[in-house]
Amino acid sequence: MGNRFGRLFQITTFGESHGPAIGVVIDGCPPRLPISVEAIQLQLDRRKPGQSRITTQRKESDIVEILSGVDAGLTTGTALALLVRNADARGEDYSEMHQEYRPSHADYTYQKKYGIRSIEGGGRASARETIGRVAAGAVADALLREAGIEVLTWVQSVEHLRATVEARHVTLAEIESNPVRCPDAAMATSMFDHIDSVRKAGDSVGGVVAGVARGVPVGLGAPVFDKLEACLGSAMLSIPAAKGFEVGSGFEGTRMRGSAHNDAFYPSADGAIRTRTNYSGGIQGGISNGENIDIRVAFKPTATILQAQETVTAGGEPTTLAARGRHDPCVLPRAVPIVEAMMRLVLADHLLLQRAQVGATWT
Amino acid sequence: MGNRFGRLFQITTFGESHGPAIGVVIDGCPPRLPISVEAIQLQLDRRKPGQSRITTQRKESDIVEILSGVDAGLTTGTALALLVRNADARGEDYSEMHQEYRPSHADYTYQKKYGIRSIEGGGRASARETIGRVAAGAVADALLREAGIEVLTWVQSVEHLRATVEARHVTLAEIESNPVRCPDAAMATSMFDHIDSVRKAGDSVGGVVAGVARGVPVGLGAPVFDKLEACLGSAMLSIPAAKGFEVGSGFEGTRMRGSAHNDAFYPSADGAIRTRTNYSGGIQGGISNGENIDIRVAFKPTATILQAQETVTAGGEPTTLAARGRHDPCVLPRAVPIVEAMMRLVLADHLLLQRAQVGATWT
Amino acid sequence: MGNRFGRLFQITTFGESHGPAIGVVIDGCPPRLPISVEAIQLQLDRRKPGQSRITTQRKESDIVEILSGVDAGLTTGTALALLVRNADARGEDYSEMHQEYRPSHADYTYQKKYGIRSIEGGGRASARETIGRVAAGAVADALLREAGIEVLTWVQSVEHLRATVEARHVTLAEIESNPVRCPDAAMATSMFDHIDSVRKAGDSVGGVVAGVARGVPVGLGAPVFDKLEACLGSAMLSIPAAKGFEVGSGFEGTRMRGSAHNDAFYPSADGAIRTRTNYSGGIQGGISNGENIDIRVAFKPTATILQAQETVTAGGEPTTLAARGRHDPCVLPRAVPIVEAMMRLVLADHLLLQRAQVGATWT
Amino acid sequence: MGNRFGRLFQITTFGESHGPAIGVVIDGCPPRLPISVEAIQLQLDRRKPGQSRITTQRKESDIVEILSGVDAGLTTGTALALLVRNADARGEDYSEMHQEYRPSHADYTYQKKYGIRSIEGGGRASARETIGRVAAGAVADALLREAGIEVLTWVQSVEHLRATVEARHVTLAEIESNPVRCPDAAMATSMFDHIDSVRKAGDSVGGVVAGVARGVPVGLGAPVFDKLEACLGSAMLSIPAAKGFEVGSGFEGTRMRGSAHNDAFYPSADGAIRTRTNYSGGIQGGISNGENIDIRVAFKPTATILQAQETVTAGGEPTTLAARGRHDPCVLPRAVPIVEAMMRLVLADHLLLQRAQVGATWT
Repeated sequence: MGNRFGRLFQITTFGESHGPAIGVVIDGCPPRLPISVEAIQLQLDRRKPGQSRITTQRKESDIVEILSGVDAGLTTGTALALLVRNADARGEDYSEMHQEYRPSHADYTYQKKYGIRSIEGGGRASARETIGRVAAGAVADALLREAGIEVLTWVQSVEHLRATVEARHVTLAEIESNPVRCPDAAMATSMFDHIDSVRKAGDSVGGVVAGVARGVPVGLGAPVFDKLEACLGSAMLSIPAAKGFEVGSGFEGTRMRGSAHNDAFYPSADGAIRTRTNYSGGIQGGISNGENIDIRVAFKPTATILQAQETVTAGGEPTTLAARGRHDPCVLPRAVPIVEAMMRLVLADHLLLQRAQVGATWT
Repeated sequence: MGNRFGRLFQITTFGESHGPAIGVVIDGCPPRLPISVEAIQLQLDRRKPGQSRITTQRKESDIVEILSGVDAGLTTGTALALLVRNADARGEDYSEMHQEYRPSHADYTYQKKYGIRSIEGGGRASARETIGRVAAGAVADALLREAGIEVLTWVQSVEHLRATVEARHVTLAEIESNPVRCPDAAMATSMFDHIDSVRKAGDSVGGVVAGVARGVPVGLGAPVFDKLEACLGSAMLSIPAAKGFEVGSGFEGTRMRGSAHNDAFYPSADGAIRTRTNYSGGIQGGISNGENIDIRVAFKPTATILQAQETVTAGGEPTTLAARGRHDPCVLPRAVPIVEAMMRLVLADHLLLQRAQVGATWT
Repeated sequence: MGNRFGRLFQITTFGESHGPAIGVVIDGCPPRLPISVEAIQLQLDRRKPGQSRITTQRKESDIVEILSGVDAGLTTGTALALLVRNADARGEDYSEMHQEYRPSHADYTYQKKYGIRSIEGGGRASARETIGRVAAGAVADALLREAGIEVLTWVQSVEHLRATVEARHVTLAEIESNPVRCPDAAMATSMFDHIDSVRKAGDSVGGVVAGVARGVPVGLGAPVFDKLEACLGSAMLSIPAAKGFEVGSGFEGTRMRGSAHNDAFYPSADGAIRTRTNYSGGIQGGISNGENIDIRVAFKPTATILQAQETVTAGGEPTTLAARGRHDPCVLPRAVPIVEAMMRLVLADHLLLQRAQVGATWT
Repeated sequence: MGNRFGRLFQITTFGESHGPAIGVVIDGCPPRLPISVEAIQLQLDRRKPGQSRITTQRKESDIVEILSGVDAGLTTGTALALLVRNADARGEDYSEMHQEYRPSHADYTYQKKYGIRSIEGGGRASARETIGRVAAGAVADALLREAGIEVLTWVQSVEHLRATVEARHVTLAEIESNPVRCPDAAMATSMFDHIDSVRKAGDSVGGVVAGVARGVPVGLGAPVFDKLEACLGSAMLSIPAAKGFEVGSGFEGTRMRGSAHNDAFYPSADGAIRTRTNYSGGIQGGISNGENIDIRVAFKPTATILQAQETVTAGGEPTTLAARGRHDPCVLPRAVPIVEAMMRLVLADHLLLQRAQVGATWT
């Protein structure tokens, strides 16, 4: 319950922050997709800790091993398992947590739900769980490439600092050109400095990650419950610290009139039916319409801060707690590859769902 | 694919706007829950058309029939089927749609996805599909009552008009006291007048529906992919016209520091562990923490407007289209019972998931 | 839980023996398949009661209505709902059952599981539930025809009477040429007389239904848990009164040596790879190999008999019970279209699963 | 697709015969169950190769590692991952298989389905895949013990040699007292000698594994599609080389009259309702009735034999092939723990399904 995602391109993740290993099993992956350890490692390297001074200083090289499902560089169509061993697990940083619940963390809810939990590093609630997602996203990308779909995600805002980004034209190089992963270079510098100053103050900030899928064929998604935006929303809201999701015009769109919000259709020069605007965010009636799919995900400020906070002990006594573990003052830069992976996993799943019911939308 | 929702308390809806009937099958409902036709009808009456002059004037009494799964007023534990016959289906209002795609509707995407569609009234893409959800939500409510959970939803904003509502204290009577379903009575009047003037202008508006679940026990939800907010988000984004979802602090929370955003724990007088604030929206680490669950859903302005709009014909020729059908200038008042139903369905499902894995959280 | 079958071509059935109606919802059906009420009715007529004096005399015309998912004779790709109203529900035949558990029926287990049950006619445990399966099987058949797959099932044995049938050549006309649905005409006569004499004695008999799928492409099925035989076995063992399932050589095959049992490969004249024998029953490693799929299903003698039997009351007191309701002395003739429907549903599902993961195996 | 089993107690297996590792992830396992590496290893040791001269001589110690989901000897309720590294992978034994399809193996169907396969050792089609099942079964056993359920399986027949075993009284010690795993000691000796002589002849034999679940509470199973026998059948038919499944009277029962086959109810001294006979095999209407659950699984003779056999090359040319790899002349002794594991997995899943929908049947 809860460790599985997707209907046909289906992943199951496992592993705790301070256990022996983290991993993922992919079930339903099409055969004969080209996959290399390097392509998977590349994505894990974007997610791994210690990339700059605004990310956690935990030392993990996060080296991935392919355990099954790949033969001579091609997927075999059978279960694909990927494993990453944990290395730098400093359990001692968490000794007080045996007694105290960290505010706005999963400590209390896990303990009450299960009556037990892996305490060090948050156990299964740790963002290290997302290693499996990012690794699986790299495999999904092999399918998306076949279908001509490109997914890009970036930091759109940090606290009050909002970047200006053209989703139609943004490139991976622009996103990766700075440690914040914000393609607006000037704003990225401001964001970096801001995050660093918040870090020094022992506090944390949140922000918004935006994403675009370009080249999505018309027809992905499903009526009613498996609308494409419902699946994307579920995917994004399953990422630690996510508190909101929007597609297209989102919450801003609630302040528009229908006459302005509707996306007028027109025939393009190449015979395709296009829309003049894209307030729909590339999805109409739950199904992709061929325009770019535009999403945004809200991330709260990191719960772990170095300032003392009011909380209670496991025994129910009031106390104060200040974290000592190594943590990110802002999860956004490392959330970028996670949002990207989840977006790819959703689209890969819907490519297969569409092929199942109607036939291939790609060749 | 796509007509099913939930893992254990699982519903499958069927039916088109202008077909013979609309309905739902519930699989996995616990036995011996008290269910009456009246309780289900009550919810359908809140959703049905023609409630005031700011809702569509389509005439449908939406009378529900229980086809199976109930015996002498109690659920039997077997498949529970509910049926509503369509009555007032004016196909002629849609004659031009055989040729023209309505902007920001599902016409184009359905046609391209399936190569066929039930055209009249939007077929399966019609909001009449939600009849099944609302009916099923009334059944879920019987389970929630056993567990002491109360769900309420209301109109929080219409275009720029924002209500002031205390989620902790709002009552169903306040919500139902006006046709807008906004418990802020003064604002409700403004909203009603605004919607009515927009209606007269042949235009439409959107807004935000808010919801609260009170009395949710600690422990509902699941780690990783089935986080409670992920399931709620999926549920809400599957509602027609929904463009965004937030839990707790949502997008606003991205502009707060961690030191302000974290919900400090304290021991309450009755021995329970509570939080001083509730920016988490009642969910931490994907699992309910016993506080109120607070959500908001963004609805775009209704796509159907009476003004002429640019579009293309099925043959790809440019044209203009002005709707003649009966439609809501603002979906919000009728979306309220739909959001409520979906929230109940998610919580009912998670009550059973929790009972399955860990044991009952209610007696 | 339990009323749903299939992964992609997915059905949910509902309805009790003596409730208002019985039905099925099909989710995931491909669009643009030709479907007529007549084709569905034809299969229901083969399943309906009162076909001869060796079947139950309950009067039900079992007229099907298409509620959704079909437009102008073609499937639309959205949820397809089919409904059959119950007509001849004689609750009074079951009055004593309020107090007494029928031996080898579901009365006791349902009561103990749920603490409640629809008593008349067995409620949900009635074989009338299979109406939904047979109706859905007729829809699945439309997909199978596109793929060139033909499914036939027949009565292979009744008690000690075993027919001689060539699965490769048997025809529907031969099967339907007699009320027993046994294509071995001479044996069919013996079977009919035998069943009739058992009926007069107030007793019942069981037997074996055999089935063949011809024209199945290579590649259907899946490794490990969704082996084609596992899905067929699950389908068949979900039919009321089924006690066993075999594919290919089955239990007889356990008495052969590997050197005799292995199906030697050879290249056929048309370039295909074929096997000299078919002890594998058309499935190797869980995946179809292009040969005929041969299965057999064991049905126990009908539990309802007119002779007095030892049992207990709901209060736990010993008593005797003799049925008065109208029942089949042998379920086999009416089980034939049910086995056929389930076989089609499994193959339709696997056609879509294969198209999803690998691509279409048909054009 | 296909690597996942179970609805709530859900496993996903991965790994190929000659790849780096084999493993399983368990999702949905209840928290606080006692689990030790030793308990899992004990079951793997019963399954591992090289136990006697009638099993394959491949050298694998099959040492299991717990990667996640267990903390201080208790399950945590999160994903439980188990890993076994492959050691003795002699790829060279399979060099000719790059060119030739082994009769009655999965070589041909995998190649045609996926267009690619891991050739050495059968890749994913190898019975080494069942390591994951057996490991997961040991975890399921921890749940079954809490519920007072005991599962035992044994070799019932080898080719024509049939054992006499009392399912009610058979013990694990009797089963494990000989390398055949047949509790009928005299017959076990005959079976051993027979298998050994067949082995020397380069041939193979099949047989039947029987199983019993004792102490199953009334109420497990579900109406219609998830009947307990349907789930057991699916589980068993997913085991490599399985060709048939029976519950209770099975195929033999088709030769009985209803008056003899019906299991008369009587009130036992302790107030429980029991049956005089158990032709139902402990399941009525798909739901357990409190009697022993009796099943039998037919296994074909091992496909790999040392005699030369007719086959074709991947290029479609006729040829002959004699195996050189290390294989079991009879899979039965090693199939016993696999059948046992699958039976446990089904019952664990249904314990949770029942607790979800109705409430706990155990304390």
